[in-house]
Amino acid sequence: MAIHNLQDALIEELRDVLSAEKQITRALKQMAKKSTNEQLKAAFESHLEETEGQIERLQDVFGELDKAPRSKHCAAMEGLIEEGKEIMEEDAEPEVLDAMLIAAAQKVEHYEIATYGTLRTWAEQLGMTKVAQLLEETLEEEKATDEKLSQLAAEINQEAQTAE
Amino acid sequence: MAIHNLQDALIEELRDVLSAEKQITRALKQMAKKSTNEQLKAAFESHLEETEGQIERLQDVFGELDKAPRSKHCAAMEGLIEEGKEIMEEDAEPEVLDAMLIAAAQKVEHYEIATYGTLRTWAEQLGMTKVAQLLEETLEEEKATDEKLSQLAAEINQEAQTAE
Repeated sequence: MAIHNLQDALIEELRDVLSAEKQITRALKQMAKKSTNEQLKAAFESHLEETEGQIERLQDVFGELDKAPRSKHCAAMEGLIEEGKEIMEEDAEPEVLDAMLIAAAQKVEHYEIATYGTLRTWAEQLGMTKVAQLLEETLEEEKATDEKLSQLAAEINQEAQTAE
Repeated sequence: MAIHNLQDALIEELRDVLSAEKQITRALKQMAKKSTNEQLKAAFESHLEETEGQIERLQDVFGELDKAPRSKHCAAMEGLIEEGKEIMEEDAEPEVLDAMLIAAAQKVEHYEIATYGTLRTWAEQLGMTKVAQLLEETLEEEKATDEKLSQLAAEINQEAQTAE
């Protein structure tokens, strides 16, 4: 479609992030399965549930805009997940692999933080208060997940250092 | 290579980000060319110079670790740049395209913020003070660039809203 204004850009970007979230749900299942640290496994599983909620919230956003929640393949998330897959195939010590899985997951979180940050700001600019509020909720969840992963990393990095 | 410990992971991740930075230099040239807002064009050009400095700094990091600065193709950055290319090919109003270019650039910045954050933390964990300090310098530059793009967006989003 031709992009005439900021609202068109908003819809285009919402379609991108809907695709990204769907890709993430599949990746999180694999990451939870592959991680050995129990707390990390639980964090991935809980973020999977949260992501499913974020997809529903995105559908509400499309509803507010009176648009069908159609996704548009997100090439960036495909690349980010490809990198995660490469890590999962590495011949690595379990503790080190856990540290690398956190690194991959934080890259995914930061993709979402950047994207929802832009979307929220665009919605505010367009005076769409309800949409901006929904996007802000997800943005805060992504930031909290990133923070939680940083905290888990502190412990797991120590274990990884003494691995071998 | 087999990844036995956190230092192996650090080297693997440094090779990834070296590839990412090289890909970014090529993308920034195109983004500077394609943007119409003069301040945005200047911001992309100045970040290009900064990125060249960051590549040199990475080479110093490899030197500290007594390793050759070999890059390993970064699939995530390839995807992020692919997304940027899709945007540049959109049939969009110039002001809206500028807003979308900022969105794409902030995703790239956040990839780097996540990556250098992990690398800096791993280097600290490994007691590599000099390496951690070099990585911290780049991390702070990436955060400053992201902040600058947010400031530019405030103006450009307004222009994009009134476009058509």
